[in-house]
Amino acid sequence: TPTSDASVRLAVIPGDGIGREVTDEALKVLAAATDGEVKFETERYDLGAERYLATGEVLPDSVLEEIRGHDAILLGAVGGKPGDPNLPPGILERGLLLRLRFELDHYVNLRPSRIYPGVVSPLRDPGEVDFVVVREGTEGPYTGNGGALRVGTPAEVATEVSVNTAFGVERVVRDAFARALKRPRRKLTLVHKTNVLVNAGAVWSRLVREVGEEFPDVSVDYLHIDAATIFMTTDPARFDVIVTDNLFGDIITDLAAAITGGIGLAASGNVNPDRTAPSMFEPVHGSAPDIAGQQKADPTAAILSASLMLDHLGHDAAAKRIEDAVLADLAARSSGAARRTPEVGDAIAARVAG
Amino acid sequence: TPTSDASVRLAVIPGDGIGREVTDEALKVLAAATDGEVKFETERYDLGAERYLATGEVLPDSVLEEIRGHDAILLGAVGGKPGDPNLPPGILERGLLLRLRFELDHYVNLRPSRIYPGVVSPLRDPGEVDFVVVREGTEGPYTGNGGALRVGTPAEVATEVSVNTAFGVERVVRDAFARALKRPRRKLTLVHKTNVLVNAGAVWSRLVREVGEEFPDVSVDYLHIDAATIFMTTDPARFDVIVTDNLFGDIITDLAAAITGGIGLAASGNVNPDRTAPSMFEPVHGSAPDIAGQQKADPTAAILSASLMLDHLGHDAAAKRIEDAVLADLAARSSGAARRTPEVGDAIAARVAG
Ligand SMILES: CC(C)[C@H](C(=O)O)[C@@H](O)C(=O)O
Ligand SMILES: CC(C)[C@H](C(=O)O)[C@@H](O)C(=O)O
Repeated sequence: TPTSDASVRLAVIPGDGIGREVTDEALKVLAAATDGEVKFETERYDLGAERYLATGEVLPDSVLEEIRGHDAILLGAVGGKPGDPNLPPGILERGLLLRLRFELDHYVNLRPSRIYPGVVSPLRDPGEVDFVVVREGTEGPYTGNGGALRVGTPAEVATEVSVNTAFGVERVVRDAFARALKRPRRKLTLVHKTNVLVNAGAVWSRLVREVGEEFPDVSVDYLHIDAATIFMTTDPARFDVIVTDNLFGDIITDLAAAITGGIGLAASGNVNPDRTAPSMFEPVHGSAPDIAGQQKADPTAAILSASLMLDHLGHDAAAKRIEDAVLADLAARSSGAARRTPEVGDAIAARVAG
Repeated sequence: TPTSDASVRLAVIPGDGIGREVTDEALKVLAAATDGEVKFETERYDLGAERYLATGEVLPDSVLEEIRGHDAILLGAVGGKPGDPNLPPGILERGLLLRLRFELDHYVNLRPSRIYPGVVSPLRDPGEVDFVVVREGTEGPYTGNGGALRVGTPAEVATEVSVNTAFGVERVVRDAFARALKRPRRKLTLVHKTNVLVNAGAVWSRLVREVGEEFPDVSVDYLHIDAATIFMTTDPARFDVIVTDNLFGDIITDLAAAITGGIGLAASGNVNPDRTAPSMFEPVHGSAPDIAGQQKADPTAAILSASLMLDHLGHDAAAKRIEDAVLADLAARSSGAARRTPEVGDAIAARVAG
């Protein structure tokens, strides 16, 4: 529980491209929302494509250990130019982003989706959309298991192994049920592909059934991932809490972002609910090298990620102030001309402050 | 090349639920479209949930061998009531549907997507959508590799292995390029997740690059599966030919069906381009036990699948007649009341005939 002069050691990883621009705005709004309530001791870590290209370093162990000593992490976005021959595919994703998620045991990858008033969905008739995806963050096809044989030859064989443990599935399923219980509709949807991925599917189905017995007030249903994408476009209002694996969660949350007004608004938390290591908050979008340095990016997703962080740290009121300010800003947006990144940050910071 | 009195040995697997209803209509339209041009020797195979529940048989080897002796297969849909305790998850999918795809080497799973005139998309502004997904059909996470240890205990570990071979990827990529070359826009998009699934991603990227050298007139781009779902809702008109793996293809084609007016219209072909075994044509939708037996299902996807089959068999003119009849029927639909399954079939058959 926070005190009026709580202090938070915050690790900031602005990353590359627009990651840096949006992080500046998130920090600006964070300061405005917590002025006098929370003191942030901020340490910046220069990590990402640019550092890798300059030094060959992705995430030195010593840096990881320093980051581990913080209370929370705010991340912008990492990634270089697509197809850059000096950036092997996956090096930053697996070496930095996923390494942080795995090493810091971010097993709940939390991605709320709402259509905020004033925001135009690409869907004709989306209805009242307000759900949250609880994406598993430390297992599934993201483990880096698998390999390749006879690489580059006509006889190449490459495998990817999805690893699913009862340990890993149970804890994220329990977290999802607990979240569902706190929401008005109390509904949980498991998304998987149990009819094809029968081994992984069985452990997910079983644990949803077993843990569900502890939550008799939460209603449960199931959708195959393919059917889930259909409902996401034809009836997204049906969803309340979705729980799913790492890869299906990656896919469904980008789709969710698209139908709720775009990746520019989608926030996420990589949460370690046991608090054995700092949780990390980041917009769902990437570093967008094509518009980097032009202050054209929408910082809203980064700002909402900072709100998720405050909520996680127990500063619910400050978190709510940010969300309300974003809501007001979004509602006022429709008419105006495109604003530059810092203008959006300034506007939201001003609303937060009062 | 077909002669005026070509004869086609056709294996028909109506399956379960609405599968049977829509198959009847597909056969009706097929007969109308090929009258005097093709003679169908039709053999019906009773396979699916109902047979399994009655006899314990999924796909006896002898039946598979009989089916193999045909020129083509028309399939309705298979599947029982969701959650039926007597139907182990995946038994029909892996034992019947996927077994046919794998045994008959259906390595090109072809799924065209168009927004036909008169059809309402759930998207506000979809633009001119006309693309085809070439989904790999015999590899990826669908191979049934993987397993589970300590099943049912807190120490359970379950794996799913995605297998990707240069052999398997190259042939489907070449097929996709050849299709792209025949289309006006000549564009190919690889969809994958190369930044996380680096082993599989490398073989897909390499073969798209290598085979692409044989197709200098086809332009190539790449999207991660998550980003592809975004574009599918914000700018689906950008797609021409998509090539992707078995699981990503499953997901993206259901989404494609949704944004082009629903699964009731989505046709597919499980094609063996080498013609070493019969290809199989089926609607993308399932057996819909909830509306089975009520003649409420839209048979259009099954009818369009029959058109894909005629095209594959070289009866292009008859295939086109079916597609044109469907187009005309769709354009006339908007105003009318809901029709029963056979009424839709009758209407399309009448348009085909005259
Ligand atoms: C960049 C990539 C590794 C990452 C993921 O796949 O998890 C991203 O798409 C996301 O959703 O956070
Ligand atoms: C029923 C299922 C096994 C199948 C698949 O996943 O391929 C279906 O969803 C499809 O797309 O044809």
